[in-house]
Amino acid sequence: MACPAMANGNDSLNLKPSETKGKTITCKAAVAYGPGEPFVVENILVHPPQKMEVRIKILYTSICHTDLSAWRGVSEAQRAYPRILGHEASGIVESVGEGVSEVKEGDIVVPIFNGECGECTLCKCEKTNKCEIYGVNPMKKVMEGDGTSRFSTVHGKPIFHFLNTSTFSEYTVVDSACVVKFVSTDHSLSIKNLTLLSCGVSTGVGAAWNTANVHSGSTVAVFGLGAVGLAVAEGARARGASKIIGVDINPDKFIKAMGVTNFINPKDEEKPVYERIREMTDGGVHYSFECTGNVDVLRDAFLSAHEGWGLTVVLGIHASPTLLPIHPMELFDGRNIVGSVFGGFKGRSHLPHFAKQCGQGVMIITT
Amino acid sequence: MACPAMANGNDSLNLKPSETKGKTITCKAAVAYGPGEPFVVENILVHPPQKMEVRIKILYTSICHTDLSAWRGVSEAQRAYPRILGHEASGIVESVGEGVSEVKEGDIVVPIFNGECGECTLCKCEKTNKCEIYGVNPMKKVMEGDGTSRFSTVHGKPIFHFLNTSTFSEYTVVDSACVVKFVSTDHSLSIKNLTLLSCGVSTGVGAAWNTANVHSGSTVAVFGLGAVGLAVAEGARARGASKIIGVDINPDKFIKAMGVTNFINPKDEEKPVYERIREMTDGGVHYSFECTGNVDVLRDAFLSAHEGWGLTVVLGIHASPTLLPIHPMELFDGRNIVGSVFGGFKGRSHLPHFAKQCGQGVMIITT
Repeated sequence: MACPAMANGNDSLNLKPSETKGKTITCKAAVAYGPGEPFVVENILVHPPQKMEVRIKILYTSICHTDLSAWRGVSEAQRAYPRILGHEASGIVESVGEGVSEVKEGDIVVPIFNGECGECTLCKCEKTNKCEIYGVNPMKKVMEGDGTSRFSTVHGKPIFHFLNTSTFSEYTVVDSACVVKFVSTDHSLSIKNLTLLSCGVSTGVGAAWNTANVHSGSTVAVFGLGAVGLAVAEGARARGASKIIGVDINPDKFIKAMGVTNFINPKDEEKPVYERIREMTDGGVHYSFECTGNVDVLRDAFLSAHEGWGLTVVLGIHASPTLLPIHPMELFDGRNIVGSVFGGFKGRSHLPHFAKQCGQGVMIITT
Repeated sequence: MACPAMANGNDSLNLKPSETKGKTITCKAAVAYGPGEPFVVENILVHPPQKMEVRIKILYTSICHTDLSAWRGVSEAQRAYPRILGHEASGIVESVGEGVSEVKEGDIVVPIFNGECGECTLCKCEKTNKCEIYGVNPMKKVMEGDGTSRFSTVHGKPIFHFLNTSTFSEYTVVDSACVVKFVSTDHSLSIKNLTLLSCGVSTGVGAAWNTANVHSGSTVAVFGLGAVGLAVAEGARARGASKIIGVDINPDKFIKAMGVTNFINPKDEEKPVYERIREMTDGGVHYSFECTGNVDVLRDAFLSAHEGWGLTVVLGIHASPTLLPIHPMELFDGRNIVGSVFGGFKGRSHLPHFAKQCGQGVMIITT
C-alpha cells in the first residue's frame, strides 16, 4: 500500500515538522473496525510521541499475510478493534519524544515489529533476537510507556496499535526500540527498497543466514513461494546452495527467480512431496523452510529434511490450537526443527549492515 | 541381571572356544514368550556367527526400561515372540564369523544397540550417530546378513533377536558393527563397569556432552532420576554446570548424588514445575532433559527452558501415537527441542575414549 502522501525523490520527505512537532497530527489511515470488515480510509488523530517514542511519517508500506490474519481475526487473541494494522514500511522521523537520542527529525527509518531495547537479558544474548519488552507480540495493542494509544478517531475514540508499528497510516508512533535508522551513505537502497527490510526480505534471508546458517553446496527446500519464501531462496542462493527446491500449489509462482532451481507442485505429484524431495536430494535436504502456516505442509517440510542432520525452519504463522505434527520419537531420527522470527536479525544492531550487503549486491532485492 | 555363568576376576572369562568355536552352543537365556508373560529361563541354542558376525559370552547384563516396554508389548510394532531381550551388557568374544578383523576371540567387548558400520552416509557424518543399517530399530528381530535368527529353542524353533544385542543370554550373536572392543590398558574400568557404557551412562552423559553440549556455569533440569537421568546430571556436573535440578515424583530418588544440586517433587508443588524452575533459574534453565517418556513431563521440560536459547533434549521413549505437546508458534519463543539416541555417541568410534575418561575420573560411575 502506498500512502496517499507518498511523493518521489527528495520531495518524498515533504516533511514540515515546524508545523507538526509537539502537536496532534490529523492524517489519513486505513482503519480495521472488525474481523474481515473492509478497511476504512479516514482521517485520524496521531498524538505526539511521549518519552522514548518516535513519530514517523510513513512513505511506503506493504501488506503481509500476518496483517491479513489479524484483519480477519483468525485468532481471537489477536482481535482488537478499531486498529491500525501494517508492519512493513519505511519513512522519516517527524519528531521524537523525551530521551530519544539515536534518531532525530528527518532520519530515514524502518519501523520493526520485533523491537530491540538493547538492555534486557535477551537483547544482550547473541543467541536470540527476541526482546523481553518489545519483542513481537500480536496481542499488544497500546504503547509500552503508559498503556494507552497514540491514535484516535477524529471523535476522540482510541484506535489500537498493532505489532509495535501500525504502518497503514500516514503517520505512526512507535517506541524508539522499534526504529532502525539508515544512513544513505552506508548503502545504495532507496527508501522504497528499505521497506523490504522491515519484514519479508529480512525474515526470509535471515532464516537462511542466521537461523539455518545455510552452507555452500547444500540442498534446500522452500515450502510456500510468497515474498518470504522467495527471500529464503535468495538467501540460500547467496550462500551458494547447490539445489533450491521451491514447493507451491500456485503454478503462477513457478518462475525461475530468486535462486529457485527446481519446482514441485504438490497437486501434480502422486507421492508425498517429502518422498519426491528425498529422491531428488539423495535422502533429503540439508534445510527445509516452512513458509505457509499449514501443519500438513509443516510435516512434509520436516520429513523432507535428511535423517541425521536435516533442519526444518518454521516461519509460517499457525493458528491455535494446533500441535506440532511430529511424534516425539521422530526426533530420534536426528531431524531438527526450530522457529525463526524476523530471520533472527536483531533489528537495530543488524539491519544497517544487512542493508549495506543488499546495496553491495550480496542479495538481489528489487521492487 | 547377572548371568548364571558369571564368575569373578580373570576366572570370569571361563571361556573355552576350542570346545565351542564353529559349533552351536547350548546355554541358558531368559526368553520372553508373550507380552507381560514371565521370562522363562531355559536352555537355548546359539548358532555360530556368520559372515561379519560376532558371538559373545555375556558376563554382565542389566535391565533398561526399554527392555520392560518391549517385554510388556507397549507398542504393537515391537511385539515379536519368543524373543531374547536385553541390550545393556559386557562380555568377551567367543568366536567371530568370516571377515571380522576388528575383534577376536578373548577380546573384552560391549555390544551396542545403536551400531556403527562406519561406511554409510550417516556414519561418515560427524553430525549424527545413526547408522543406516545398524541404527537402533526396535522392530528388527533377525540378523542383517541373512534375515534369520541365531537363536532357537532346543526343539529348533527360532527365537527372535532384540535391538541388535539380545543380552539376556549366556551367549549372543551380534553384527560386528554392534561390537565395541575395549583394551584394558586404555582405562581402569572393570568389565562389570564397562556394562554401564552400553546404554544408560553413555545415553545420559552423552546427551549432556554431545547433544546439549552443556557449558560451564549453566543451569540444568533433569526430569526423571532413573539411571539415565542421573547420568545426565553427572555429565552436567562434569561440565561444570552451576545448578542441576532433579525432578522426580519418587522421593526415594532424592539423594544428593551424581551432581544434582536441587530437587523438585511435582507432587509437593502447587504451581506447574516449569514455573518453579523458571523462578529458581532467572527465567529458565539453559538445558532441560526429558528422561521419562511422559508427554506432560515433556511439556514441562520444554517450558522450563529459557526463552530465546533454552534447549530441551528428549531421551524418554514415547508410545505411539502421540504428538509433541508443543504448538508450532511456541518455537518462535526461541526454545529448541532435539532428540538424543545413545547420547550422540558413535559407539565404536567414541566409546573407548569415553571409557578412558571414566577411568581418569572425569566421570564418576560406580556399581
